[in-house]
Amino acid sequence: MTDAIENRQFRLVRRPKGMPQRHDFELATETLGEARDGEVRVAIEYISLDPAMRGWMNAGKSYIKPVGLGEVMRAGAAGKVIDSKHPDFAAGDPVSGNFGVQTHAVVPGDELRKVDTALADLPVYLGALGMPGMTAYFGTLEVGALAEGDVVLVSAASGAVGALVGQIAKKKGASRVVGLAGGPEKCAYVVDQLGFDAVIDYKAEEINDAVRRECPDGIDVYFDNVGGEILDAALANLRLHARVVICGAISQYNVTGNVGDTAYAPQNYLSLLINRARMEGFIVFDFADRYPQAAREMADWLAAGDLKHREDIVEGFDTFPETLLKLFTGGNFGKLVLAVED
Amino acid sequence: MTDAIENRQFRLVRRPKGMPQRHDFELATETLGEARDGEVRVAIEYISLDPAMRGWMNAGKSYIKPVGLGEVMRAGAAGKVIDSKHPDFAAGDPVSGNFGVQTHAVVPGDELRKVDTALADLPVYLGALGMPGMTAYFGTLEVGALAEGDVVLVSAASGAVGALVGQIAKKKGASRVVGLAGGPEKCAYVVDQLGFDAVIDYKAEEINDAVRRECPDGIDVYFDNVGGEILDAALANLRLHARVVICGAISQYNVTGNVGDTAYAPQNYLSLLINRARMEGFIVFDFADRYPQAAREMADWLAAGDLKHREDIVEGFDTFPETLLKLFTGGNFGKLVLAVED
Repeated sequence: MTDAIENRQFRLVRRPKGMPQRHDFELATETLGEARDGEVRVAIEYISLDPAMRGWMNAGKSYIKPVGLGEVMRAGAAGKVIDSKHPDFAAGDPVSGNFGVQTHAVVPGDELRKVDTALADLPVYLGALGMPGMTAYFGTLEVGALAEGDVVLVSAASGAVGALVGQIAKKKGASRVVGLAGGPEKCAYVVDQLGFDAVIDYKAEEINDAVRRECPDGIDVYFDNVGGEILDAALANLRLHARVVICGAISQYNVTGNVGDTAYAPQNYLSLLINRARMEGFIVFDFADRYPQAAREMADWLAAGDLKHREDIVEGFDTFPETLLKLFTGGNFGKLVLAVED
Repeated sequence: MTDAIENRQFRLVRRPKGMPQRHDFELATETLGEARDGEVRVAIEYISLDPAMRGWMNAGKSYIKPVGLGEVMRAGAAGKVIDSKHPDFAAGDPVSGNFGVQTHAVVPGDELRKVDTALADLPVYLGALGMPGMTAYFGTLEVGALAEGDVVLVSAASGAVGALVGQIAKKKGASRVVGLAGGPEKCAYVVDQLGFDAVIDYKAEEINDAVRRECPDGIDVYFDNVGGEILDAALANLRLHARVVICGAISQYNVTGNVGDTAYAPQNYLSLLINRARMEGFIVFDFADRYPQAAREMADWLAAGDLKHREDIVEGFDTFPETLLKLFTGGNFGKLVLAVED
């Protein structure tokens, strides 16, 4: 058992303007002390990189406190217990939690979640069996109020959340699920592997025409991860009483220093009036008390080989600032995860 | 009993571009035949002029069929029965219905509603006890899901719907109701007569600053009749889980030929994500099966002298095209009604 551990961490030292840059972070090394009573020391193996992190870097009111300047960058992560002073955990246990962008962490045991690596590898607990999974599940079924026979459109359909939204919608009775993705490789994956009924290559097609073609009778649920022109095309094609689920707006996050500002405002919002439709934002944390039930259902699907997932694992802790950018350029293919070891 | 009646009517003959003009209508005279079995002949006394009429003049998909070229312009109205071949109605009965912009009508009896002129004058059945009343009632309580203690912001607060929204919200437990109106006279009315807690003169104040000042803890329900910059200011000041009720967008209707298009898109829509809020459009017709219950409650308040209403009655059937424009210039003060007789 090591008493003192060298812990490396990325601290936020500047609030990014537009895309985050390496100089917005400081790569620091500290000595990690022992766990105190009720705490656990964790060796982090995988760090979850998510669009929401961009918002956490901004000052100002949001759904969660901004990361303070000088603080370790917030992130979900997974790893193994080094040593434990909490009765529920022992050395070697695989765990996940909000450990931050660092190689090691000391965490109160009640903020940790033990995971089952017989069911799925650690990175999956940052994707399909983690926050993206919960986001897709509650966003589709609760906020989107998916009903039997619905037509569902999903942006970022090959991404961590979108891929699950489409699959969950199909399982729960959607009559047609259409995805949007960028480029032939991702588009093929969405239809061939994930089982969507159709896909639109937003990089190659005129979006309005394509949405109208693929959803000729309109859309009941649009699950939006991107904002911008795609949101507008969806609005223009809503059915009566449609639900637009605002999960994110990745096309807009880096335009200004403020997540609440957008460069592209939805021109077609009055479609909500004409179609008596609603547009609703949500944060997965609001459903925290129901995670266990959803996680069980997702795990059952996964165990049955019936839930496809894909992780885009980039090796090397030190690459964090550049690897994060893949999210905003569409460079990742699947759930983006940073592996601590090279 | 008159067998043949000279009926004058405004027919839509052109689809307006921007503001409707007199040349978009034809003032025609026809001879009205007798009522057939089940029908009733009505002498129209008051015609309801409503923002929604602008939308009905456009071609294209909307929540209701457009008025066809050459057809009588659609409108709610009230008047008295001339003669009846329907068992429920007799000559002299005061009635309301969708009679159109004309001086007389022959209408199936089951499309008529008998009204009680002992409780309120005929024009009130086009306002507080008519569609605007139902719109305010269901928009506030159902779509807005008003809860005890809510902070409510209402645009067009001296208008037909807005004036009722604020009063209903206060009756149902809102902790604070703030209105927006144009000019000192309307603003004084909103606070002194209608009992709103505060009012913002959108013509005199910087809207963002004023909304922040009057709703310092944010907004739970924003009832939007206008769209544009006021909607954006409301979005910027939402509370967690706020509801934005899209009833109309009068600032936007005349910009293009299409109600679905807007000149001013809501830049701050991502406030819906940050605040897990929803924005929802509705059409009062969706609540038609519950009108009787709501109408009874509204009538009780009115009978108790507890529901303020104001009609802006313009005399002269022939002035229809110009009188209608008062809605879009903010020229009316209260529910705009056209009196058929001079």
